[in-house]
Amino acid sequence: MRRLDASLCSVNTATLGFRAPLEDTVEAVARAGFGAIAPWRREIEGRDVARLARHIRAAGLSVSGYCRSADIPAATAADFAAGLETNRRAIEAAAELGATAFILVVGGLPGDSRDLAAARAQVREGIAILAEQARACGVRLALEPLHPMYAADRACLNTLAQALDLCAALEPAPAGPPVLGVAVDVYHVWWDPLLAEGIARAGAERRLLAFHVCDWRRPTRDMLNDRAMMGDGVIDIRAIRSQVEAAGFGGFVETEIFSVLDWWRRPPEEVLATCRQRLETVV
Amino acid sequence: MRRLDASLCSVNTATLGFRAPLEDTVEAVARAGFGAIAPWRREIEGRDVARLARHIRAAGLSVSGYCRSADIPAATAADFAAGLETNRRAIEAAAELGATAFILVVGGLPGDSRDLAAARAQVREGIAILAEQARACGVRLALEPLHPMYAADRACLNTLAQALDLCAALEPAPAGPPVLGVAVDVYHVWWDPLLAEGIARAGAERRLLAFHVCDWRRPTRDMLNDRAMMGDGVIDIRAIRSQVEAAGFGGFVETEIFSVLDWWRRPPEEVLATCRQRLETVV
Repeated sequence: MRRLDASLCSVNTATLGFRAPLEDTVEAVARAGFGAIAPWRREIEGRDVARLARHIRAAGLSVSGYCRSADIPAATAADFAAGLETNRRAIEAAAELGATAFILVVGGLPGDSRDLAAARAQVREGIAILAEQARACGVRLALEPLHPMYAADRACLNTLAQALDLCAALEPAPAGPPVLGVAVDVYHVWWDPLLAEGIARAGAERRLLAFHVCDWRRPTRDMLNDRAMMGDGVIDIRAIRSQVEAAGFGGFVETEIFSVLDWWRRPPEEVLATCRQRLETVV
Repeated sequence: MRRLDASLCSVNTATLGFRAPLEDTVEAVARAGFGAIAPWRREIEGRDVARLARHIRAAGLSVSGYCRSADIPAATAADFAAGLETNRRAIEAAAELGATAFILVVGGLPGDSRDLAAARAQVREGIAILAEQARACGVRLALEPLHPMYAADRACLNTLAQALDLCAALEPAPAGPPVLGVAVDVYHVWWDPLLAEGIARAGAERRLLAFHVCDWRRPTRDMLNDRAMMGDGVIDIRAIRSQVEAAGFGGFVETEIFSVLDWWRRPPEEVLATCRQRLETVV
């Protein structure tokens, strides 16, 4: 297991609540000593991506991931095509940013559908299409299983086993490093009785593309925006990092905290300093 | 698949928000035409159980389940023993009530523990002990996997596969009907990519002891008390009932709705009439 210091860690910009332009966030993250950043589409789309990529590199930061896909399941063929088009453009941006992976948060039940199997079939179909383009662009796609409490509205991909099965079905025997992999976020998977097996399998199949940390607050007051700072919740984060690294993960440990109720109200410098201190002591 | 009418259905008393004494609830449920009821320990403990059991029978109701166990994982040996003692008394009450099963909601992480594996080991140890007593009392135990969002504070048993694996480990080859089985609540399991396999396996192993319905509201405003009335959410309840019945379940379809924000504010008669109407049309 690695001895973590900030240079091995990344900050997902969501952690700072999107309160400043990306350039300012890049400066703050670099100043705090981190080795990487993970920006979001909302900070990139419609802007000069090449220029932003240069800015990030000039600050000495890598891009641990690019967040995140538009929803894949859709109620109409036109919406399905529009989602794919957004994702195609995002894959191009991920290439330009040099991101380790483009993060796929696949979407939940479209419209008023109750058909989870159909949504999952659309996800499979969409990712098959995007994988071709990603391969051509030299971008890897990290399928992120989301906590089952988001199955309806954010992602119908809900366990690591399900994500790995999908990767294996779409890309059964990659010659080189696979294009399809997974993002393991402790918030989404910590409860899973099959977590250790899933992580070992992901490593053996060379699909561990991202590792995200935060903590699970007890009680959780809001289903989306009440993630805790590492150490303030109930997840044994170090045990999970140990499994992930034993499985071969050597990438950045990325902090991603959605916290309208707490951390998004604090000064960015305080948030970053606390992340760094916790990464070095409890993660 | 059965044609559902109220005589095949049960009302879990939680659905009415525990606003009246059990006797009144029994009358109301019977008056509304239901075939069964599922009471809670809070309505039974410290009272004359034999008398309550007679009251329920006199109203023409069966008892589809008795809710629910005290937490099994505990921070101290004394707390562990106390939990088991509460559950032992509850199993005796379940026998007296003639309940189809005593429902095990096993508990989450005890105290300030972050050790989910240890909590799960305590659950296994506790259920092994309770199974002996249940067998002696002629009571069946229904392990209820709870939604993963409750892993920290309510139940570290979170998938049907996990519950069935535990049943199989503790009672590998029962001669007669197994003492250990599962409760399938659509709210907790609807998202599970392995749900259909789990239901089929539960049926094949004769462990389908309870089937609970409500719906998943989108958005869900409260993690505990915002369950929806059947038909008002995103779960394809009929598809799941079809799987459960194809797997051999012939028991009562039990409505269990925690809804501080909505149904618990309405008159019991309205709630019961709505349950009945929805059970007969969308479940």
